[in-house]
Amino acid sequence: HVRAFVRPLHPADLADLIERLDEDDRQRLVRAIRDVFDPECLPWLEDSVREDVMDQLGMERVAEAVAELETDDAVEVLESLDALEQREVLRHIPAADRAVLEQGLTYPEDSAGRLMQRELVAVPPHWTVGQTIDFLRSAADLPDHFFDVFVIDPRHKAVGVVPVSRILRTKRPVRITDIMDRQFRRIPATADQEEVGRLFKQYGLASAPVVDDDNRLVGVITVDDAVHVLEEEAEEDLMSLGRVGGTNVNASVMDTARTRIRWLLVTLVNTLIASTVISQFEATIERIVALAVLMPIVAAMGGNAGMQVVTVVVRALATRDLAPDNVRRVVLKELGVGVLNGVVFASILGTVAGLWFADVRIGLVLAAAMVFNMVWAGLAGAMIPILIQRMKIDPAVGAGPFLTTTTDVLGFFSFLGLATLFLI
Amino acid sequence: HVRAFVRPLHPADLADLIERLDEDDRQRLVRAIRDVFDPECLPWLEDSVREDVMDQLGMERVAEAVAELETDDAVEVLESLDALEQREVLRHIPAADRAVLEQGLTYPEDSAGRLMQRELVAVPPHWTVGQTIDFLRSAADLPDHFFDVFVIDPRHKAVGVVPVSRILRTKRPVRITDIMDRQFRRIPATADQEEVGRLFKQYGLASAPVVDDDNRLVGVITVDDAVHVLEEEAEEDLMSLGRVGGTNVNASVMDTARTRIRWLLVTLVNTLIASTVISQFEATIERIVALAVLMPIVAAMGGNAGMQVVTVVVRALATRDLAPDNVRRVVLKELGVGVLNGVVFASILGTVAGLWFADVRIGLVLAAAMVFNMVWAGLAGAMIPILIQRMKIDPAVGAGPFLTTTTDVLGFFSFLGLATLFLI
Ligand SMILES: [Mg+2]
Ligand SMILES: [Mg+2]
Ligand SMILES: [Mg+2]
Ligand SMILES: [Mg+2]
Ligand SMILES: [Mg+2]
Ligand SMILES: [Mg+2]
Ligand SMILES: [Mg+2]
Ligand SMILES: [Mg+2]
Ligand SMILES: [Mg+2]
Ligand SMILES: [Mg+2]
Ligand SMILES: [Mg+2]
Ligand SMILES: [Mg+2]
Ligand SMILES: [Mg+2]
Repeated sequence: HVRAFVRPLHPADLADLIERLDEDDRQRLVRAIRDVFDPECLPWLEDSVREDVMDQLGMERVAEAVAELETDDAVEVLESLDALEQREVLRHIPAADRAVLEQGLTYPEDSAGRLMQRELVAVPPHWTVGQTIDFLRSAADLPDHFFDVFVIDPRHKAVGVVPVSRILRTKRPVRITDIMDRQFRRIPATADQEEVGRLFKQYGLASAPVVDDDNRLVGVITVDDAVHVLEEEAEEDLMSLGRVGGTNVNASVMDTARTRIRWLLVTLVNTLIASTVISQFEATIERIVALAVLMPIVAAMGGNAGMQVVTVVVRALATRDLAPDNVRRVVLKELGVGVLNGVVFASILGTVAGLWFADVRIGLVLAAAMVFNMVWAGLAGAMIPILIQRMKIDPAVGAGPFLTTTTDVLGFFSFLGLATLFLI
Repeated sequence: HVRAFVRPLHPADLADLIERLDEDDRQRLVRAIRDVFDPECLPWLEDSVREDVMDQLGMERVAEAVAELETDDAVEVLESLDALEQREVLRHIPAADRAVLEQGLTYPEDSAGRLMQRELVAVPPHWTVGQTIDFLRSAADLPDHFFDVFVIDPRHKAVGVVPVSRILRTKRPVRITDIMDRQFRRIPATADQEEVGRLFKQYGLASAPVVDDDNRLVGVITVDDAVHVLEEEAEEDLMSLGRVGGTNVNASVMDTARTRIRWLLVTLVNTLIASTVISQFEATIERIVALAVLMPIVAAMGGNAGMQVVTVVVRALATRDLAPDNVRRVVLKELGVGVLNGVVFASILGTVAGLWFADVRIGLVLAAAMVFNMVWAGLAGAMIPILIQRMKIDPAVGAGPFLTTTTDVLGFFSFLGLATLFLI
């Protein structure tokens, strides 16, 4: 009855079901459905779970599954096997298919070459719509679905694209060359998947031709795979800004702790630097203990304001809404926002602190430190991600920790420093 | 020459160009290209910029543009006008088109009804492929592109879907009813766009039929629009977790400051609560000033560890990787990770603090507070977003501030409290 329950599920839903089970239940389920297991489910699984499932299935069964998949899905499945398992699976696959898959694996990880499928429809420009339709009606090894027919010259260069719906709407005698789009986006096989996702989003593509260095058509990327890339990249940035390594809610306690601890070590260094700054002012704090009560405020407000800017700027860099021609404008704007933030919160907090400790000077010192740190947060929050990206480092990863270290240091230093100068 | 430069641009690229200009340059550009302005550019602009551009174009020119767009894009453009402008634009539009647009605007904001286009291809099931192709070759008011042909019964209910490529590959005499998919996802017109995006991603859809309460076909949503929804929703969560309101890098200083300050007020309350906790221990700090140096560490480490968990859980809730059947497992896992984090960082920081202030007891107090706060961070980081979602509040917005308030309060309270008990 497990099989009867599983069989009608969409492969993506079956994948979700398998992911949500704990290891024992997962093994039991996969064993129960081993011989009716839908190969289409494999590409929908996340990496770590997929490894588990494939170990359960055994490499021979995996090879059968891989042989049934379209090349992009097959390559994705092969990617999550180690070298030894890969070789074993490939050994079970017919030579022609094997060569295609092996070639797919030669493209760099996260490149268009890995994302593309080799199954596509390509016709010469001199064919008519009628010839094209007759060919499609008789050809055997076409992709399951396709959104565009590509037009190639004798040297296999991509010279045009015709959306399928246009072919359907055109009369049989019309030549392909007369209805094809000559201006279209070609994706280099070595392009990063981030760029692939961006192109699909920017131009609302349904599919796009992938070409090699000589502009020869080598594959096609379809929008469903581009959607996964966009989600993957957005998730990567979200996780990096949240200072989390692995994104996988189903990972084990040990794996999760390992990636989390790596990030928390960065926070640790950050806080120890801040503590060192505070320790320089022990004598001041000893004399006015109210400072200990108020000092976390400046650092926290600066850190939060700065992270707001970092979040916006990192996102804008990823979507290319921030480009060289508006960098200056955005940095100046954030500086302006920082000044406004500073004035607003200096007024509020200066008043609160002055009243709380019945000492105008404490309020003034807090206010001054607040203005200083808020302005810095605006400026640094905008510039740090931009500079980090110029150094070819992912701004989503590096900018946050770097920014908060500076806002902590400046927050404590300016507040306690001004207090030492004016209150002692 | 501005026009010569602008004319070959893809509408999405023209939109980006317009967005990146400052207000003056933007007005000048729009004035210069007013009479060659591509209406297709309007839906690609972000709301605030679109308003600007339309004010420049004038409502009559906007009406011309809207009349040229497909209904989904026309509705999106109308959405960003105020009621008065909407009426003026609609007045310039032919009655039949106007009725369709007015009906589109009756669906709730961010619903499938707003996203769908009315232009679609629907045929009865008894037609043959040949009849369908002949119809498509002669019909006038078809959408520019389409990916699926929908099959409807006499009462206009959606009974099947045929991908366009399948029609192309099937011989003329075959009946539509014999090649259509009878199992397919229907999207209710009132469904939230978040659900629309999720369906497209989960099932790799190219387009999907939208139906009314009686299951009658009323429109179609295409994948390019679903991609924008997915990006919008991912961005919304990213911005909420980064505690930023407006997501628009091009907004003015005043607008930006206003939305940022609203969020910073939440942080302000958070820090004032933390300060109140610290102030309860002034006497203790006065006697052992080293505590002031160390106390930010416990709060910061707990806050960061908790936000890691919040980030992962909020994302998993959005993607539905976290569902009722694995909530218990995920919460227990995060509790386990919290314990591990606690042990690791208690050891490191206990040792550092003990050596730094040459006092084993200070190290022990710090270590104990660290274990306590890290375990809390794991538990609360997982449970707060889940509970908030059950209360029908967006966990991406509410969870972060709530979590860090608790880790701050517990961090300061446990460290200073233990110090008061054992060190004084
Ligand atoms: Mg899934
Ligand atoms: Mg293995
Ligand atoms: Mg796929
Ligand atoms: Mg990949
Ligand atoms: Mg694919
Ligand atoms: Mg990446
Ligand atoms: Mg990235
Ligand atoms: Mg854009
Ligand atoms: Mg207006
Ligand atoms: Mg919208
Ligand atoms: Mg559309
Ligand atoms: Mg939403
Ligand atoms: Mg949401």
